[in-house]
Amino acid sequence: MTENLRVAVIGANGRMGAAAVAAIGRADGLELVAALGRSDPLERLLETRAQVVVELTVPDSSEQNVRFAVQHGLHAVVGTTGWDAGKRTALAGLLAQNPGVGVLIAPNFALGSVLATRFAAQAARYFDSVEIIELHHPHKVDAPSGTAIRTAQLIAQARAGLPPAPDATEQAMPGARGAVVDEVPVHSVRLAGLTAHQEVLLGSAGEQLSIRHDSFGQDSFMPGVLLGVRKVASVPGLTYGLDGYLELDS
Amino acid sequence: MTENLRVAVIGANGRMGAAAVAAIGRADGLELVAALGRSDPLERLLETRAQVVVELTVPDSSEQNVRFAVQHGLHAVVGTTGWDAGKRTALAGLLAQNPGVGVLIAPNFALGSVLATRFAAQAARYFDSVEIIELHHPHKVDAPSGTAIRTAQLIAQARAGLPPAPDATEQAMPGARGAVVDEVPVHSVRLAGLTAHQEVLLGSAGEQLSIRHDSFGQDSFMPGVLLGVRKVASVPGLTYGLDGYLELDS
Amino acid sequence: MTENLRVAVIGANGRMGAAAVAAIGRADGLELVAALGRSDPLERLLETRAQVVVELTVPDSSEQNVRFAVQHGLHAVVGTTGWDAGKRTALAGLLAQNPGVGVLIAPNFALGSVLATRFAAQAARYFDSVEIIELHHPHKVDAPSGTAIRTAQLIAQARAGLPPAPDATEQAMPGARGAVVDEVPVHSVRLAGLTAHQEVLLGSAGEQLSIRHDSFGQDSFMPGVLLGVRKVASVPGLTYGLDGYLELDS
Amino acid sequence: MTENLRVAVIGANGRMGAAAVAAIGRADGLELVAALGRSDPLERLLETRAQVVVELTVPDSSEQNVRFAVQHGLHAVVGTTGWDAGKRTALAGLLAQNPGVGVLIAPNFALGSVLATRFAAQAARYFDSVEIIELHHPHKVDAPSGTAIRTAQLIAQARAGLPPAPDATEQAMPGARGAVVDEVPVHSVRLAGLTAHQEVLLGSAGEQLSIRHDSFGQDSFMPGVLLGVRKVASVPGLTYGLDGYLELDS
Repeated sequence: MTENLRVAVIGANGRMGAAAVAAIGRADGLELVAALGRSDPLERLLETRAQVVVELTVPDSSEQNVRFAVQHGLHAVVGTTGWDAGKRTALAGLLAQNPGVGVLIAPNFALGSVLATRFAAQAARYFDSVEIIELHHPHKVDAPSGTAIRTAQLIAQARAGLPPAPDATEQAMPGARGAVVDEVPVHSVRLAGLTAHQEVLLGSAGEQLSIRHDSFGQDSFMPGVLLGVRKVASVPGLTYGLDGYLELDS
Repeated sequence: MTENLRVAVIGANGRMGAAAVAAIGRADGLELVAALGRSDPLERLLETRAQVVVELTVPDSSEQNVRFAVQHGLHAVVGTTGWDAGKRTALAGLLAQNPGVGVLIAPNFALGSVLATRFAAQAARYFDSVEIIELHHPHKVDAPSGTAIRTAQLIAQARAGLPPAPDATEQAMPGARGAVVDEVPVHSVRLAGLTAHQEVLLGSAGEQLSIRHDSFGQDSFMPGVLLGVRKVASVPGLTYGLDGYLELDS
Repeated sequence: MTENLRVAVIGANGRMGAAAVAAIGRADGLELVAALGRSDPLERLLETRAQVVVELTVPDSSEQNVRFAVQHGLHAVVGTTGWDAGKRTALAGLLAQNPGVGVLIAPNFALGSVLATRFAAQAARYFDSVEIIELHHPHKVDAPSGTAIRTAQLIAQARAGLPPAPDATEQAMPGARGAVVDEVPVHSVRLAGLTAHQEVLLGSAGEQLSIRHDSFGQDSFMPGVLLGVRKVASVPGLTYGLDGYLELDS
Repeated sequence: MTENLRVAVIGANGRMGAAAVAAIGRADGLELVAALGRSDPLERLLETRAQVVVELTVPDSSEQNVRFAVQHGLHAVVGTTGWDAGKRTALAGLLAQNPGVGVLIAPNFALGSVLATRFAAQAARYFDSVEIIELHHPHKVDAPSGTAIRTAQLIAQARAGLPPAPDATEQAMPGARGAVVDEVPVHSVRLAGLTAHQEVLLGSAGEQLSIRHDSFGQDSFMPGVLLGVRKVASVPGLTYGLDGYLELDS
């Protein structure tokens, strides 16, 4: 019998941290050995002999938590935002000095959302037209959503060199044709009752391909977190984005 | 055995006229007795003893064609645009002098579209949020579509006196939240492969109602035309809008 | 200033009862005066001078609770199941002896679901084909759902006398074409992540009308409960089904 | 200036052949040099110095047409059905003797459909539940569609070793839960107005991924045919399935 993997959560009191604590507690093959609040001493990670750290705190403390883990040979799965290119380069340098340690930084743990974005970008060069509709609860303050903007950018990259989508619009009311992100129209719906949803529509003569992701709540992140926890020890160095852990070559 | 209803088409060479000629020719209980081009003499209607005239020409000639029909006791089903309030009032006056004659003027013969608009307006007052997404082929020159604008206006009318839909948006890229028609956001997608589609989304805490109509081509107008032809003789006076002929009280 | 309406909930400890207590507590113009568990004495309704009773208990006790309310001049909004035709007839008799008292019995309080079913039934006679897809969480034990069966029956009623939907299927794997409820095909999807969803598809040459309702959780029932509470005093006698309270004639 | 690629169509009188003739005639960089009916002599391909042959005939003649092309050094793009494993092995042998010649046999030329099937299969192992809904015009004689069956088989392959999808159904009307193809439920809708549509629904706790393809008509096959024509000369040997020509690694 293989032993359970020893997992610690930092940021266990946040909404996503609490969900991670519960999910790890229920998962086969994993053992939750520590659930640290943001101000708890990091030494607890060592005392509890954690092997993988799930880091879900705030941008200000995330870097120092991850560096501590790496320096002590612990693998880390990181869901905190704010890891810009500079911080990632510095971390990659530290990982080079600690071979065998793996870190996954994932801006999005919802497997379905990660897959939807990837598929949309892959398909984009094979269609004449692409538009994005994203739909969220009405408490959201920004429009379009960050995910929609990133999706549009990846689509635009994939379509580099192709002619623009056909559009004969001459008379448009302001806003009718959406926000234009890197030449991709993005439409933002805000509707009571919804959570977080996105649909990419791709069209050519005689056909349409639609790729839609619905997130109904926070539990949609947990399969991605568990996938990261289970795999991080076998992928040394820095991986950015959950896609890197998916096997999609078949 | 009842006799067939004798039907004539004016504007038989246009796209919609040709479709009407074919549909009437195939329909049980109807007999196509005349198919007039725009410049054919209207006396043909009398010589062929038509009972119902389907008028599908152009705004310039429609009024005179319909008046001719009414004055000779023929019922008329009219799909030509341009019948503004003034023309309709004048026609109603003529009909008052010709009791027993019925005229249906329908800006939209697609039963599904008429029903979708009606249902959306009926439901609108029972939800916190309403938005419209309309999707068309990329050769369309206007955005939003006329149907979407009319739908938004009817929704706004139904919601008069209700609080506005919740929307916490603070940072929006221009266009992200769509065109605002009478306080209803309308999003216009233009995509190769599509024809004419519209979806009304209605949301409240914990639920969403979506009413969608897809038009895949001109044949979607024919059931509405046939319904009009069959019913117009039994509805004296002027009816504006196909809804007036639908039985929706159950 | 008008005084608040005095409302009591019976069955306040159940899931739906607790949600009703919370919703009434937050609602403008309503005052929660009593929240009774199933075994609390009904005299509390009188002591607290409740005007409207929301009855959300179990089939065994619902009838006696409602009769008590009616006999003491209290209006009632009832969400408990089990009110068959016999019980309803008996209650109508009691209401005849208590003129001015109103009772609403609603098998479904989700406004969107009630509207979706009604619209589907109204539209059904105007299309060649109608099919139902219902989608639920995988813990559901019955297929199709009760709502789908009732929707199919209403659709079949509306289509009485029309020819059957065209279907050239000759070679079908068992189950491919769904369950047939009163000649309407019903397809039941069971998918992790979902709650309760239903889509009615109506098609004719060249067009499709789709009416979809998504229920994401219990809070979708509360607007219907509040609508009932606010209106029941002005509708004497027995009303069965929330539709009776909706104004849909525009 | 590069010279145009010289293309011939065999089966030019069929519906798809005629569409191919038109599409090649309009395409940049391609020159239609021959449009053969089924009984025209194959020598015309040589006389017109065709470089690529598009084969769209019937199962009985397809093999002999393609062998003729290969033996004379012409590349071939084949859309005819009936190329079972035996015929493909024989053709691969012939191609081994004619190095440099490329043949693409594609059971489906609709790019969107090919991509949708591939994405569904790739995603399938990352979700708890997968079901397929396919929707077609009511003249279709088989249910489920061939594409749906193939999609279900690929999904089942990708999920080998995973636990079955959760399903608590105890009381089901016959057919409610669809046809079961390799443990994947498939629901077949037949609706007037539709053409050919397929949706794969994938669900896990808190999220859903939906991948939908709509085919509105035959012109959806042409971009795939043109892609094949342009690429076949650079891919020696036999390629089965259009996916092999798509670049999806980004």
